[in-house]
Amino acid sequence: MSQNPRRQFLTHSAALAAAPLLAGISGRALGQAPARKLGVALCGLGSLATNQIAPALQKTRNCRLAGIVTGTPSKAEEWQKKYGLADKSIYDYKNMHRMADNKDIDIVYVVTPNALHLEHALAAAAAGKHVFCEKPMEITVERCQQMVDGLKKAGRMLGVGYRCQFEPNHLECVRLAKEKVLGDVKIIDANFGFAIGDPTQWRLKHDLAGGGSLMDVGIYCLQTTRMITGEEPVWINAAEVKTDAVKFKEVDETVMWQTKFPSGVVANCVSTYSANGLAGFRVAASRGWFGLDPAYFYGGNRGRRSDGPEINIQVPDQFALELEDFADAIINKRPTKVPGEMGLSDVKYLMAIYESIKKGRPVSLA
Amino acid sequence: MSQNPRRQFLTHSAALAAAPLLAGISGRALGQAPARKLGVALCGLGSLATNQIAPALQKTRNCRLAGIVTGTPSKAEEWQKKYGLADKSIYDYKNMHRMADNKDIDIVYVVTPNALHLEHALAAAAAGKHVFCEKPMEITVERCQQMVDGLKKAGRMLGVGYRCQFEPNHLECVRLAKEKVLGDVKIIDANFGFAIGDPTQWRLKHDLAGGGSLMDVGIYCLQTTRMITGEEPVWINAAEVKTDAVKFKEVDETVMWQTKFPSGVVANCVSTYSANGLAGFRVAASRGWFGLDPAYFYGGNRGRRSDGPEINIQVPDQFALELEDFADAIINKRPTKVPGEMGLSDVKYLMAIYESIKKGRPVSLA
Repeated sequence: MSQNPRRQFLTHSAALAAAPLLAGISGRALGQAPARKLGVALCGLGSLATNQIAPALQKTRNCRLAGIVTGTPSKAEEWQKKYGLADKSIYDYKNMHRMADNKDIDIVYVVTPNALHLEHALAAAAAGKHVFCEKPMEITVERCQQMVDGLKKAGRMLGVGYRCQFEPNHLECVRLAKEKVLGDVKIIDANFGFAIGDPTQWRLKHDLAGGGSLMDVGIYCLQTTRMITGEEPVWINAAEVKTDAVKFKEVDETVMWQTKFPSGVVANCVSTYSANGLAGFRVAASRGWFGLDPAYFYGGNRGRRSDGPEINIQVPDQFALELEDFADAIINKRPTKVPGEMGLSDVKYLMAIYESIKKGRPVSLA
Repeated sequence: MSQNPRRQFLTHSAALAAAPLLAGISGRALGQAPARKLGVALCGLGSLATNQIAPALQKTRNCRLAGIVTGTPSKAEEWQKKYGLADKSIYDYKNMHRMADNKDIDIVYVVTPNALHLEHALAAAAAGKHVFCEKPMEITVERCQQMVDGLKKAGRMLGVGYRCQFEPNHLECVRLAKEKVLGDVKIIDANFGFAIGDPTQWRLKHDLAGGGSLMDVGIYCLQTTRMITGEEPVWINAAEVKTDAVKFKEVDETVMWQTKFPSGVVANCVSTYSANGLAGFRVAASRGWFGLDPAYFYGGNRGRRSDGPEINIQVPDQFALELEDFADAIINKRPTKVPGEMGLSDVKYLMAIYESIKKGRPVSLA
């Protein structure tokens, strides 16, 4: 097993090496190419920032890597060299206020551990920067609300990193659902998990992660159910299972939950840190079915539908798609598709799942 | 949509038209070919008996269609003509005791509505016949026990129609689990359902069916979880969702349930009468995954495993496999792999699922 617990998300990405240019793929009518690319500072240089987001920034036409925030001097040196960053654009977590003087930076992409998102988002906003925040947005509803309020007060835009909201295979499934191509959607089965490695990582510490597999990967399944239905859950029933009480002392290992939506659609979901192989969803409708498997990898997502055609739209880079869209929203002064309110409501539902687990009975949200 | 709610199980069977002879496929070392084929009387001539079991009997080497039990004279005439049955081998539900004098009949295969299984099984046993009973075995644990006791008292063999217990793709998955080929099994996701047609059919009447989708197709998922783990559930959490209160006035439309097994394996399952497209299972293990999709059709089941090879063993006829095995068990005086006790325990777990739904909380079985 890989030492990097997230490396397996990449399974299919090798096939994308010869992918066509991004602009022709996104399918969205972006605004005019900007006079200058918006500068993005990456706040937190873990594996996601290193292996996905920084490379993605090289592929966008309206933004670029313009700065970094890190607490590790050796990383600062390495990144500065690799990406030719100016001295003034290298920050640590204590001097982010200095960004106010740096016109090269327009957006701060917060990729730190979940429980640090609020602090870093507010620091960026205080320096006059727009904020793009990884999901889960924060570890409590209250902290999400503080982030929303803080960015609003600062008059800056806030987006949450829901890459599947821009992934064309997901969007095709949303279309199939919305247009009832295979009849009324009835049931959604969605699962995501992986066998997590290093037992010392922050994802296994409650204070930093706010939860385990549910917060980290279960959120993808929750998003799928909301995207496919276009509705909000009104009822949640959940259970947790732990097979390794030492490794998962502080956070959930496996969570299973069921949700009901107002139209009668139901969803059955699993998130796990204990096993590989669950990374897809299936939508059962009155006249047929469709779904993706895998659905949640960084590349190579694909699917099937019961009436024949394969769902397999090549995506050169999901992070490039979400960043291009966020930059475009800023440039063209339009709302983002993934606002802080979306991140907040997801955290609300994740907390309801934990509440159901704790109470040992269903939780009504209606 | 097909008027025959079960026709969709056949989706892939056309591809099997040119399937090789059964004997070479079953992979089991059957006993010597018998001096005479055991005679099977089909009790209940619905679509399953008509379209699956009677044709299957033409393909077995150790049994044959030798009689019928039906309450419909026109069916009796049609079947007698089609299969060249003797006058003495045509029964209705009130004269099954006369089978005692018919040496052509060794086995009665009970394919009537669920709540009639006990009556017909006991009538067959009283006439000295072995009984093969469709699943679910009956509609309560008590009635299953009465069937087990009745057959034991009569000194006849009782088997339950769990075709997946003989389906080689399922058996390959059991092997992968047991031999830990992809590591320890952690999570099983299993679903089965279809959009049921005719609202007047017996499957939608509680007195005859004992329940809805759970009893009819959920039982396949339950069996999968027991087969893959080799264990018995110790905890069940379940919920029901109804979107059509008229059609599903008497029985469940959609059931979602979660089970825990002693080793820590968990399962997340759905059964439904409201939608097509859920008919598979996925097993997530510590080093990879495997599963079948579809898993539960009459033909064409196939699957994948994360380390590469496709799971796709051609099966000419699952009903022929189960019937050959049952006849072989009788001929060679060995136990069947699918005894009444297995059918009884499944009904016990199905009832625990209904109990959890009713109570709105998990049910412990430990």
